[in-house]
Amino acid sequence: MIAEPVPLEAAWRWIEANAPQLEAEEVDLAAASGRVPASAPIAGADVPASACAAEDGYAVRAEETLGAAPYNPLPCAVVEVGDGPLPHGAAARVAAGEPLPPGADAVLPRDAIDPEAGSRIAVLAPVAEGDGVMIASSELRAGEPFWPVERQRQPLRPAAIGLLGAAGVWRVSVTRQPRTRILIAGAPVALGPMLRALVELDGGRVIGVDPLDRRQSSAEHLVAGVDVVLIAGGPADGPEMEVRGVAIEPGCQTCLGRANGTAIVLLPGLPAACLWAYELVAGRAIRCRGGRDPCLPYPSRCLRTTRKIVSTLGFTEAVPVRLDPDDRTAVLPSPGSRPPRLRIAAQADGFTLVPATSEGSAAGSVITVWLFEPAAARDAGRG
Amino acid sequence: MIAEPVPLEAAWRWIEANAPQLEAEEVDLAAASGRVPASAPIAGADVPASACAAEDGYAVRAEETLGAAPYNPLPCAVVEVGDGPLPHGAAARVAAGEPLPPGADAVLPRDAIDPEAGSRIAVLAPVAEGDGVMIASSELRAGEPFWPVERQRQPLRPAAIGLLGAAGVWRVSVTRQPRTRILIAGAPVALGPMLRALVELDGGRVIGVDPLDRRQSSAEHLVAGVDVVLIAGGPADGPEMEVRGVAIEPGCQTCLGRANGTAIVLLPGLPAACLWAYELVAGRAIRCRGGRDPCLPYPSRCLRTTRKIVSTLGFTEAVPVRLDPDDRTAVLPSPGSRPPRLRIAAQADGFTLVPATSEGSAAGSVITVWLFEPAAARDAGRG
Repeated sequence: MIAEPVPLEAAWRWIEANAPQLEAEEVDLAAASGRVPASAPIAGADVPASACAAEDGYAVRAEETLGAAPYNPLPCAVVEVGDGPLPHGAAARVAAGEPLPPGADAVLPRDAIDPEAGSRIAVLAPVAEGDGVMIASSELRAGEPFWPVERQRQPLRPAAIGLLGAAGVWRVSVTRQPRTRILIAGAPVALGPMLRALVELDGGRVIGVDPLDRRQSSAEHLVAGVDVVLIAGGPADGPEMEVRGVAIEPGCQTCLGRANGTAIVLLPGLPAACLWAYELVAGRAIRCRGGRDPCLPYPSRCLRTTRKIVSTLGFTEAVPVRLDPDDRTAVLPSPGSRPPRLRIAAQADGFTLVPATSEGSAAGSVITVWLFEPAAARDAGRG
Repeated sequence: MIAEPVPLEAAWRWIEANAPQLEAEEVDLAAASGRVPASAPIAGADVPASACAAEDGYAVRAEETLGAAPYNPLPCAVVEVGDGPLPHGAAARVAAGEPLPPGADAVLPRDAIDPEAGSRIAVLAPVAEGDGVMIASSELRAGEPFWPVERQRQPLRPAAIGLLGAAGVWRVSVTRQPRTRILIAGAPVALGPMLRALVELDGGRVIGVDPLDRRQSSAEHLVAGVDVVLIAGGPADGPEMEVRGVAIEPGCQTCLGRANGTAIVLLPGLPAACLWAYELVAGRAIRCRGGRDPCLPYPSRCLRTTRKIVSTLGFTEAVPVRLDPDDRTAVLPSPGSRPPRLRIAAQADGFTLVPATSEGSAAGSVITVWLFEPAAARDAGRG
């Protein structure tokens, strides 16, 4: 029953082969933030479709403002134009983003006018054609993509949401979120909230966090209606496992299997081992199914280790680190602890991975560190 | 009506004085991920309270396994102990995280036994006292804090959730999320989804995204029941504004005011200007009220600019950048565009800020860049 653990890279290959990207679904633009686009959509029309005001002010014909100055105010009628053209000698109030009326070719900012009584203003400064104007198609031309193809695996950010909104796109095609079942089997129930938090950070949708009912634990039953199953403290004698052990430390009891084409990840029951097994193995399955970049979802840095790191050959070892409070180019690796402790992970700023082929790193050497928080991932001396 | 814009740092000081941290509320541990703790809680008891199994296996008395070997298997009865002590000469099946029965002092891993018929196993290898055991209080001692005080402004990560769960803490005191009203006034309605996405990334709770009804726009009415109000394309002649313009580009029309003690931020109506005004000014109000680190919520990097950056003295300028695809230590700043464009922001990997006192940076100089995505914030040559 106990097999040789496979290298971490082999576990990753298994996941990439067995946790394929899910199909697309359409969601409202207001719910699309953080979702992963299923394609690089193409603008159906120019954005903006016609020249717009770039700021609040008064749409005018630029040539009619020539010579205006505080000592030579040019009176001007403010008109409501509706959809019609701007009459000569008149100005129309416009808000930023609004189309200019036909005939107008510049926007007078509010500090270039003197609001006179009634529906008149005095122009105090000239504007040139195009001043205060966002010209047609200056964001996007019809047929251009909204973002480059290489950005496709990245969750939608607010600026992309704004650009889609500006183009009038109100429904977006995104990769479905992996429905994830979390089962706790012979492990502390306290693992449930931690695993839920991990899955949600990787864009998964948690369907339930439940104790494993061994009477109902046929592999087919476990995978019904979900895209990934995580079992903490799972019985390796349960569903058919294809990978029995991954050469990582902590977390070497991690197993990978399938039922009806759905990936099942068995995680160790010890909380700290479960955490690292999720970070190094299970999270990748969630990210792959959700169409995300499979790599670790943390910024990385090359930093000096202030202490020697000792690691076991043959195992990829996750070593929590803290930033050196006196030198932000250095980290203090946690001294190894067996069994691994959750508190060390909770108090860490990030972690390093010692490859299976390495016995560790000497004090002073530069290592790659993944950092949990933006605040931790700030370059030295800047904030 | 048009006043001199204040420096960005003065706007930040106004926000820190007028957008104070909200009160604490209690939430379930399962909903606490990403929330900001309102205090650094203290462990009420040792974690774990007694020695636990660090892996799945058989709890034994270590001294009774002396001499066991594949050629000298020691037979051993497997017993159910309930809450009672482990009988001499027996083993009790335990799962990782479960307390050891009194008397047991080691856990035999599954590959150190031969499962014999019925309720007997054969021990194939000796274990030493403490092997496979997580000793009492090895995570936390009663009275110790769950995390250092300096981590207090950071959203709760999964490891902290796990540690709280391991200690049996099922309710957590967190800072209330700022209830945020978004009003669209004389600006494209397309701004709504973008502003919602921005507020949610900063931990705010969006109460509504609505057009500003000018008949109901008394300042007191706008702030009723919420902690922050954002008005895009807002009329500077509306609620009483204390800061009329912030010296940032894009976004210099940003205004700050209060009604009944609640902060109101007026954002420009042009989508790209609105985005940058949120990033540089309004987001800080959301983060301050929610008890987060007020700084920009992105990892920063010191990188070389491949092009000269030209900026206007007197304004802090946000310049979108893309990573150089051929050299990950360098960025390509976007050529300045007036009016600013949302597409450039949507396609950027991050941005740099040119201080108001600087006219820009020469090509080849090192600048601080904030990066949107973990993938972008990876150190050169590593992934």
